[in-house]
Amino acid sequence: MIKHLLLLIMVLWVNTGHAQNITIRNFPVPNTASAEIGPLVSGQPTPFWNDHPQTRDEWNLWVSQIAQGTIKQLPDLREKMQVSVESTQFSGVPGFIITPKQVLPENRNRVLIHFHGGGYVLNPGEAGTDEAIMMAGYGQIKVISIDYRMPPDFPFPAAIDDAITAYREILRTYPAERIGVFGTSTGGGITLALMLKAKAQGLPLPAAITVGTPWTDMTKTGDSYFTHEGIDNVLVSYDGWLGDAANLYANGHDLKDPLLSPIYGDVQAFPPTLLVTGTRDLFLSNTVRMHLKLREAGNIADLIVFEGLSHAQYLMAVDAPETKRYFKESILFFNQYLAR
Amino acid sequence: MIKHLLLLIMVLWVNTGHAQNITIRNFPVPNTASAEIGPLVSGQPTPFWNDHPQTRDEWNLWVSQIAQGTIKQLPDLREKMQVSVESTQFSGVPGFIITPKQVLPENRNRVLIHFHGGGYVLNPGEAGTDEAIMMAGYGQIKVISIDYRMPPDFPFPAAIDDAITAYREILRTYPAERIGVFGTSTGGGITLALMLKAKAQGLPLPAAITVGTPWTDMTKTGDSYFTHEGIDNVLVSYDGWLGDAANLYANGHDLKDPLLSPIYGDVQAFPPTLLVTGTRDLFLSNTVRMHLKLREAGNIADLIVFEGLSHAQYLMAVDAPETKRYFKESILFFNQYLAR
Repeated sequence: MIKHLLLLIMVLWVNTGHAQNITIRNFPVPNTASAEIGPLVSGQPTPFWNDHPQTRDEWNLWVSQIAQGTIKQLPDLREKMQVSVESTQFSGVPGFIITPKQVLPENRNRVLIHFHGGGYVLNPGEAGTDEAIMMAGYGQIKVISIDYRMPPDFPFPAAIDDAITAYREILRTYPAERIGVFGTSTGGGITLALMLKAKAQGLPLPAAITVGTPWTDMTKTGDSYFTHEGIDNVLVSYDGWLGDAANLYANGHDLKDPLLSPIYGDVQAFPPTLLVTGTRDLFLSNTVRMHLKLREAGNIADLIVFEGLSHAQYLMAVDAPETKRYFKESILFFNQYLAR
Repeated sequence: MIKHLLLLIMVLWVNTGHAQNITIRNFPVPNTASAEIGPLVSGQPTPFWNDHPQTRDEWNLWVSQIAQGTIKQLPDLREKMQVSVESTQFSGVPGFIITPKQVLPENRNRVLIHFHGGGYVLNPGEAGTDEAIMMAGYGQIKVISIDYRMPPDFPFPAAIDDAITAYREILRTYPAERIGVFGTSTGGGITLALMLKAKAQGLPLPAAITVGTPWTDMTKTGDSYFTHEGIDNVLVSYDGWLGDAANLYANGHDLKDPLLSPIYGDVQAFPPTLLVTGTRDLFLSNTVRMHLKLREAGNIADLIVFEGLSHAQYLMAVDAPETKRYFKESILFFNQYLAR
């Protein structure tokens, strides 16, 4: 009975001539993930995963529409996390200072720098602050979130240029040993690329970094791009909007440039790094490849893999144990390596 | 064209009425796994994954045939690893002492205890010594491999009883702080169950343990039993021989007994634990669930996930970088926590 239903679905799928040949795979909701995050795990694929904006205007409209959904949730999140957010700039690079109502004594002289995710196209302006707000609130530490420039108007190397400019400026106020840097997805990729760029410029590196499911390889290289296609319900496939975004940002540069794909960089002498992913994550390989590479080069590198989670879902349900765990592990990690 | 071929395959599959409804999924060989391990990654499923022995004789014959294949390779492996193997017993429990030609000075007073894998049914006698031989050789440390009793003749709790008996006996010669314990798959499960049992009996725990892709949940619980079915080409599915073996060993006991499925145990005050798995591993969830549980309980627990690997493939190509890495990481871990 089930098999004949599957056959019917298969026939329908073949006959509709779906452009991508991607099968969405559904599984039971694991009762080994938390009840709070269960609806995300069992949810339908992100509605926009297979959008393919073409023109500059289409990209900008698409980005703006998605940002509106995120921005609506921010007042509640700031209230819940008891943080205030102030818009500022660092040598001309815009950003946000997120200050919790209470800063822990050990965090008084520390700061965390945040880079948001979104494939180098999504989450402009305050839409990129949600992870930073949660880190500031859960960690009771000041966070600076960098609102780096993005395509279609500002392709590579605008984002990484902004990252290094802001980092240089923050180094004028905070010594590197009191700075941590973090980000998820593209934010993790930028964090890693920033280490490469800072090394190349002879700047001191931060005391520690945490990178959640980082985009370390912008080419479709890495096993889980294939094995987890249609399993991850957030990104779903490289061949959705994601691959388009890679090319839009790279703007003709080699996607294997280490500042685009830090997996191809020299990671010697990186700061201690915590990496986080999930068992269904399309970026599982992006994460574990970098973890192993960092260890092979003699760095301290810890890995956490969340049961049942697709890409970055640990950011998407503020009260879920997985979300709290992500921030707790990050905070413990920073606390271990940052000077007071 | 490809879609119509898939449709044809689907029709054939529906019409042949395959008993298991399991689809083997094939993917490109990732060039991000090593060339040496590539043939394993791209290999066909283990020929016996869907065998279902019924009677005692069928089980014993099946186990014996698979063991013969393993045993053939041991003389070369011992020679390559420069180890000697001596058969012995510990308070009546048979085992093997594996001594490398050269023992590192820091390892003179240390010993590692090994439990082999194989679903509580495979790898009796010396067939269970390959991982121990490689650890002794790569680590230049003495290893004791325990040849615990197995079903169909000796179901639960024979294996864990043998484990604790042997451990007690070894504690008469080595203080716990100079002992490490390790094992892969079922061997990892036994290692974890041994910690529970030793705690319950008030015995001192070893200084550190490493568990490769441990069988922490013998019920079909955990996301990757579903998401990675047909992706892992070693175990392929819980519904092959594996689930049968679980029930054969449990012999009517609740599969959620913590000595069968240590994920349900109290892991407070466990020794530092290194866990290892792969991105295609059917036991990815078995591994990461335990990793998170150990950390949540305040233990030191490190995780490594190998790119592209199915269950325990890091043991199956002695010269592969992944294999060497597995043993190197294990050795570094033991060296960090064992007293000299």
